[in-house]
Order: sequence, then C-alpha cells, then structure tokens
Amino acid sequence: MNVGGTPRRTIRSADGYAVEIIDQTLLPARFALVRLDTLGGMAEAIGTMRVRGAPLIGVAAAYGMAIALHHDPTDAGVAHARATLLATRPTAVNLAWALETVSGEVLDLPVAQRAAAALARADRMAEDDVAACRSIGEHGAKLLEARAAEHPGRPLQVMTHCNAGWLATVDYGTALAPVYLLHDAGIPVHVWVSETRPRNQGLLTAWELTQHGVPCTIIVDNAAGLLLERGQVDVVIVGTDRTTASGDVTNKIGTYLKALAAREARVPFFVAAPSSSIDWRLTDGRAVPIEERAAAEVSGDAALAIRNPAFDVTPARLVTAIITERGACPASAEGLRGLFPERAP
Amino acid sequence: MNVGGTPRRTIRSADGYAVEIIDQTLLPARFALVRLDTLGGMAEAIGTMRVRGAPLIGVAAAYGMAIALHHDPTDAGVAHARATLLATRPTAVNLAWALETVSGEVLDLPVAQRAAAALARADRMAEDDVAACRSIGEHGAKLLEARAAEHPGRPLQVMTHCNAGWLATVDYGTALAPVYLLHDAGIPVHVWVSETRPRNQGLLTAWELTQHGVPCTIIVDNAAGLLLERGQVDVVIVGTDRTTASGDVTNKIGTYLKALAAREARVPFFVAAPSSSIDWRLTDGRAVPIEERAAAEVSGDAALAIRNPAFDVTPARLVTAIITERGACPASAEGLRGLFPERAP
Repeated sequence: MNVGGTPRRTIRSADGYAVEIIDQTLLPARFALVRLDTLGGMAEAIGTMRVRGAPLIGVAAAYGMAIALHHDPTDAGVAHARATLLATRPTAVNLAWALETVSGEVLDLPVAQRAAAALARADRMAEDDVAACRSIGEHGAKLLEARAAEHPGRPLQVMTHCNAGWLATVDYGTALAPVYLLHDAGIPVHVWVSETRPRNQGLLTAWELTQHGVPCTIIVDNAAGLLLERGQVDVVIVGTDRTTASGDVTNKIGTYLKALAAREARVPFFVAAPSSSIDWRLTDGRAVPIEERAAAEVSGDAALAIRNPAFDVTPARLVTAIITERGACPASAEGLRGLFPERAP
Repeated sequence: MNVGGTPRRTIRSADGYAVEIIDQTLLPARFALVRLDTLGGMAEAIGTMRVRGAPLIGVAAAYGMAIALHHDPTDAGVAHARATLLATRPTAVNLAWALETVSGEVLDLPVAQRAAAALARADRMAEDDVAACRSIGEHGAKLLEARAAEHPGRPLQVMTHCNAGWLATVDYGTALAPVYLLHDAGIPVHVWVSETRPRNQGLLTAWELTQHGVPCTIIVDNAAGLLLERGQVDVVIVGTDRTTASGDVTNKIGTYLKALAAREARVPFFVAAPSSSIDWRLTDGRAVPIEERAAAEVSGDAALAIRNPAFDVTPARLVTAIITERGACPASAEGLRGLFPERAP
C-alpha cells in the first residue's frame, strides 16, 4: 500500500542474498528501511518484532533460510537455520509452515543448489502472500459491503485489534485488506483502532490506514466494550496467528474480549485467515502454545511482578465467519474443510 | 493502610481550612503530600486526578466546600463552590452527593457558621467513608473466604481492575478492603492487577498492595480474558463510580469486558459499592453520563484522532453480587432495596 504516496511492500529481495525490511519497532515515529543479510540478523528482527505479523513472519523466515543456506547449505546448516528461526516466536503457525516448506524442498536438492532454491521459494511465498491477501480483501469486502448497505448515509464503522494490515503481511494485509478495497472503491469506512497493549500495534494500524487515506480513531483496548454496547461499531474484523482446523482463533491478546463484546452486541466478528495460518493438525485452540513475552514490554519497573502473555484464543462459537483466500466460511471444521477439501482427513 | 510500615489515610484535615492529600499523579514513582487550601486548588486536584476514586472524590469535594466557604460563605459563594467542584468530574455520583449534602446543610445556617459546619460535615463524611469501607471489607471477606475454601492449599486468585483500594477512598478501599482483611487474617491471597489504560491506575493498586504486603501481578488489560478462560482467576472484584437503583454498574472503562469474560468462565464477579455510590434516581445504566477525557491521556501524538471514554457500564445481569456496607445482595432493584428499605419509592 502507499507510504507518502509511494507504493511499498514490507519486505523485498535486495541485491544478493539479502532482504530489505521496514523496521516496525521505529514506526509510527520513523519510517526506516533495514538490510538483513545474516541468519542472526533475521532471527533478531523476528524475535524483537522489527518484522511482525504472522504472514510476514513466515515470508521473512523463508528469506532467512535462503540467507543462511548461502553461507552453509549442508544438512547441518539447514537444521541449524531452521531451529534458529523457529525459536524466535512460538505461536504463529506461518513461521513453522514456512520453515518446513523451505527445508523440505531444499533437502531433496544437491547442496550447491539449495540457497538459490530457497531464495526462489521465498520470493514465490511473498508473491503468494500478496495474492492471498488480495483475495481475502475481495471476499471480505463483499461481507463489509453488505453491512454498509444496512447503514446507508454514513461510513461503515469497523473495529479491529492489533495490526493485521499490510505491515503484518507483504502487502494489503489480512483484516485490513477488505477495508482498503472498500475505501478504494469509494465506500466510506471508518476504523476504530484499539491501541493493543503492551506493544501498541494499534499505532501501526493507525499509521498505515492514515498513509493510505482511510479515516480511523484510536481507542484504548478497554474502550471496545463500551463502543460495541453503544452501537458505534457495525463489524469487527481481526487477523489470526494460528487457526485450528475447527475454527478456534489464536490472535493477539485481547482479541477474545472483543469477540465476547461483539457477540453481546450482536455485531459480526470476522477473522481474516490466509490458509497459511491454519494449523490442520489441531482441533482445540486450548492446545496452542501461548507466547509469554518479556515483562519489560509492560513496565520498565523491575520491582513489579508481571505476566505478559501475547495471545489469547477466541473459540469458534464466537466467530461469525472466517475469511480465507478461497472465500468466507463458518468457523467450524465443516466450514474450513468445505473450502479446503484437500485437507479432509 | 500502611505506607513503608506507617498507617496513612489519603486525605486529612490540616491546620485551619486546609487538607493534606497524597498526590496520586506522582505514584507509584514518588510518594508526596500536597496541602490544598483554595477552592481552585481542590478543583484542579480532582480534575487532574491528584485525588481520584469515587469515594475519595466525594470526601475531597466536601472539604473543598469548607475551604471555599471559609473565604466566601454567602449563598452565592455556596453556589459558586458547588458548581466549580461539580464540573470537575461528571460520572461518579459520590461527588454530586457530597456537594448536595454539604450545600443543603449549610444553606440552613447563618452565614457566619457555614464554614465550620461544612468542615465538620467533611470530617464526618471521611469517618463515615472509613467505616463503610471497613464494613464492605468484612462482608466481602466472607464471600472471598468461601471461594478460598473451595481451593485449599493455594492462594485465592483475585482479579481487579483500576484502583478501588484505599487510595480511592479515605482508607481500606472498596474492592480491595476484603482482600486486605483476608490477608491480615492470614488467608493467602494473590491479586491479578490489570494495568488500566490509559491512566494506569493498576500501578496504584500494585503499589498499595505491595506496601501492605499483599502479593500481586500486573497484566495488561488485554490479558484478563486469557487468564479467566484458563482457570487462573477464582473471583473478580471491582469498585463502582455510580451504581443504579437496579444494580447496573458504571466503573472504569474496561470493567464490562472483564465482567463478560468472568461470566463466560463461570467466575463470580463482585462489585464493592458503598451506598454513597448508588444513584437511587436511575434505573438504567445506559443513562449515566460517560466522561470523555483528554486525548493526551492516550497518546501525545496530536496528529492522531483519539476517543477516550473513561467509564463503561456493566449491566446488573453480569454482576454476581453487590457488596455494600450493610452486606451483600443480588444486583437488582429488589436486592438493593432489601438492604436499603428507606430508599424504597
């Protein structure tokens, strides 16, 4: 999407075995590009959330494999790169999926061809991500348009949580892709952006929406219930870091509270989920490992006892529909398998 | 309660027409006392939340009346002081109640006696608040003890929101009074303290619990749902800024989300409500005015559009019991009138 009027992506191949990323820890205060050309640099960038968002993490990890294999393409090198990148973040399934995909493919090749194959696979993964997000945008825009048609004469009021915009993917975003397409089609839309403590990814969402010209308003996470209860929200749409085969949604901590409040207010709660975020082996969201991040993200006061879980699980019963690149479906095993019949057990 | 081993109150009469308060905007970084001896100073202290918490605001406003009447005890002076103090915060009913009480009493007196009468009334209001909180503590401790008995061999896990501790009252607190009494009785208790954006009153709660020796852990507001859903909370207890006669509870923004998550997890949700917080004229929480505070509390970035509502409404159906100074009752018109029959219409 646009930054200062110029189309941008969050990650791109640079010369040689290297990528250029936007350092998201500096946003919204400063827009800065960083070049990464070592495995350690990529692992650090993912772990400290310079690149973040489940889809982007997957693509970044794939590039990380290519960069690592350029230096050491042996079986041991593949295993080391994979383990190093896997250890950076435990919750998003895209990360494990991307690493498995690249590793599986290169291990079948002669050592000398591995780095180039990994780089080509990472490039393709990036293009696939853009296509999937664009497609989620189109399917989601239809659902949002239907809601907008119920309230003619005023902007559609969308609420989101965290950042599931183009900054969390390669382009377009997941939850925000339908919003961008609606806006670009001239349908008025306004987004309630929740701050998303402790990392304040809501500020990233507000930044990217504003750069693209979409009106939005920041609220603290606590305010979501009041706005929903008072009828100021027409639809909630969020992303997902890991969706189970049964439709349970693991997403940024606080998502579950919004889902409860949406149900209470009879407001649709949509989840934008590229198929790369679906963990087909899991049928119960309670089995998803929840990343516990550093206390310092919450407070710099070392004297305080702090717990900092980064994700929560929204059970399928609270999700109105899951929007994938193949279309929208009920949040259920039947719904997901209807769209992805090749995944039926 | 104790600060550094010394018993303290949040407000006390100083020499002459003046009070000494703890400047709560400096906590937890710094413990500092401030002397207030003008109407303007008191209005500023309430408006900027140097003194905060519905019960304490009421007592502080009563002292503010006494201080103002010392300078101008005429009918116009009474009206001016009352209007000035009433304009500081719109939501807590204790403020309006305290101002009405003092005004009503002094207007019947000769001008020369008004200031002294207001001061005496403010002193009595402070003592009444301490007694009410102590009594809420005793009634609430019985409810918490019953929950603790269901989980022998480990600390009772209490979750609270905002600060409804002794810092929000003159002493003991409302929601935290039962916690203090349980702890002082040797029953192990641990408190999950939610940060409470945008003002971070959770840090006040953690500070006062720690000063008194009660174990506690800070979480971001977003984490409440996960902890409740995963069985890590036995009971939720919060305060209230305005309770309707039907048991709807207006409290710090975010309270409603915790109530929804508590119901979903089948965890009791208690509200500690001194009768001074009950608005007997209202039967629908949706009629309570919700204070909108400055955008700067959320972010210093003036380029962002921000909404900052300070309270939300938890409907009576989500409240397990209301704990008053006369005992606990169901959150309903019948329940509250059973305890306060003199309020029956």
